[in-house]
Amino acid sequence: MQPAANKEKVAIIGSGNWGSTASKIIGRNVHNFDEFDKEVKMWVFEEMINGQKLTDIINTKHENVKYLPNIKLPPNVKACPDLVETCRDATVLVFVLPHQFIREVCKDLLGKIRPDAKAVSLVKGVDVSESGLTLISDLIKQHLNIRSVSVLMGANIANEIAEELFSESTIGFTDADDAAVIKKIFNTPYFRVSCVNDVAGVEICGALKNIVALGAGFVDGLRYGDNCKAAIIRLGLLEMKKFAQMFYSGVRDETFLESCGVADLITTCSGGRNRKVAEAMVTTGESLSALEARMLGGQKLQGTLTAKEVHMILEQKNLTQEFPLFTTIYKIAFEGLPASHLVRDL
Amino acid sequence: MQPAANKEKVAIIGSGNWGSTASKIIGRNVHNFDEFDKEVKMWVFEEMINGQKLTDIINTKHENVKYLPNIKLPPNVKACPDLVETCRDATVLVFVLPHQFIREVCKDLLGKIRPDAKAVSLVKGVDVSESGLTLISDLIKQHLNIRSVSVLMGANIANEIAEELFSESTIGFTDADDAAVIKKIFNTPYFRVSCVNDVAGVEICGALKNIVALGAGFVDGLRYGDNCKAAIIRLGLLEMKKFAQMFYSGVRDETFLESCGVADLITTCSGGRNRKVAEAMVTTGESLSALEARMLGGQKLQGTLTAKEVHMILEQKNLTQEFPLFTTIYKIAFEGLPASHLVRDL
Repeated sequence: MQPAANKEKVAIIGSGNWGSTASKIIGRNVHNFDEFDKEVKMWVFEEMINGQKLTDIINTKHENVKYLPNIKLPPNVKACPDLVETCRDATVLVFVLPHQFIREVCKDLLGKIRPDAKAVSLVKGVDVSESGLTLISDLIKQHLNIRSVSVLMGANIANEIAEELFSESTIGFTDADDAAVIKKIFNTPYFRVSCVNDVAGVEICGALKNIVALGAGFVDGLRYGDNCKAAIIRLGLLEMKKFAQMFYSGVRDETFLESCGVADLITTCSGGRNRKVAEAMVTTGESLSALEARMLGGQKLQGTLTAKEVHMILEQKNLTQEFPLFTTIYKIAFEGLPASHLVRDL
Repeated sequence: MQPAANKEKVAIIGSGNWGSTASKIIGRNVHNFDEFDKEVKMWVFEEMINGQKLTDIINTKHENVKYLPNIKLPPNVKACPDLVETCRDATVLVFVLPHQFIREVCKDLLGKIRPDAKAVSLVKGVDVSESGLTLISDLIKQHLNIRSVSVLMGANIANEIAEELFSESTIGFTDADDAAVIKKIFNTPYFRVSCVNDVAGVEICGALKNIVALGAGFVDGLRYGDNCKAAIIRLGLLEMKKFAQMFYSGVRDETFLESCGVADLITTCSGGRNRKVAEAMVTTGESLSALEARMLGGQKLQGTLTAKEVHMILEQKNLTQEFPLFTTIYKIAFEGLPASHLVRDL
């Protein structure tokens, strides 16, 4: 079926826990607006589940039995194992896959998407190389030569949203018209989306929160109590803001009071695997990498990678003293500093 | 013993859980500075404990066995059952007693304290009468005719501080020199005090957080999850800020990122009796007042009183629609609105 030429058409690149949850919202929302094509393709990295293709299971059972079990997906969400086929006709590309696959996906898509396509990234993390820090949204923009890349971040534990429990989220944008389209595919009464003209601020929040979550986990492991944990969250929020405003212009103070800022930081420091593994590091004395392998069943800790990358940048720029919390968390995580120094050195 | 005429001398008015904790910090800190008289008097509302006067127990055992058991107080903290005697020579009056006793205490002290005395209030709440809203600090200032009243608020669960676990706190001041003296008596390596020139902002945070904690408790009772709880905390912080800035001039944005703001709100919405009783209201269907009587053993919920007072003010000024969270919390708490409307009506 050819899409109507003047219709918006959404493709979802990724089908994990968060991607599948996003597909449930988007698959329903496109029915609310005439301007959207009703088919939503979702790229699925093909795998076999009990002798059946995951794409076939999703397309017949309307459930991602591996990554979002027991949640019905709308039937207009079509799982597709071919990346280019998924995205070819799309005007809105939703990136929701792990950071390390972004470059390859962009390479495969370059020149094969519509020239008027826009993107939104739900990807957490930053890209660090010898040339410095790059936002994932900038990486997509550069590698895909696409007109605008927005981001969506917030206090968004996927399973809670899949169950339609209330939450909020934040779109950071550069192009207000594109953001308005993206808001339509995400906003629901139980998933309230706000838009801010600040891609960097929103995206940096989504990356740096995981460093702070390691600190919160150390507090929990040390049994230092609720006052101390709230202090770490507060100091972490201030260092996130300082970092974002030091490295990017136009980052707004108000962004840190959006869902992507203070709210996401609170959920990440309450539950979340970074917090959990950091707590276990203090109580068991094992290394983060050993615990990661043992506790997470193949999943990776975002916080450790981000902590290393951010520390590298701060060292390069001779800024470690200006970020005492990030620096202390790094030293506890990787240089054998006793966890009890977390607050002593602030 | 007469105090040296040019020495600062501290009196603590109140000896509950938080007052006794404050006395431990202050009793030690006065030894660190030449300018302080080493005796710190603490007013204790006399009561008999197993046939012994509480003041005698504190002055011999150096422990407030009723309100802060198992914590040694410094021997230079002298419990005194006479309010005027406690305060007569003091240059720094630390108010740390329930809101409802403030007027009476000020009446008893008026004209009987040093003319150069300054005060700091650790009292939570606001005073509401037909004439409107009054800050507790203003109430003290007016009723005691005293030169300056600072406030100290933060993520400060007393027992954790008494055990010397790390926390932060915020002094809101109008007189910077007075604030510097007050900071000296409170600041320690485990209790880090910052000063902001914003009494109203700091004090309003300390009062309004308890309304938000009721909302957080409703979320917990509804089992709405971490995303929703973070959203309520975030929206609560924004309404606290809006309220403070609407009713008081000079309230600073940054104050809400201090310990008195976001950090205290986080601890109050994690633990705390307002949260706990509000959760029980949802799960049991009983009223807040019935649960308060049953669960708190005579202690009072600050949040319910503040929610009523704030709602009265908002109704008077026709502002309920501008504060949808505060208003919805009030209606759930007192007007039979189902708790599930908490997020529906936002």
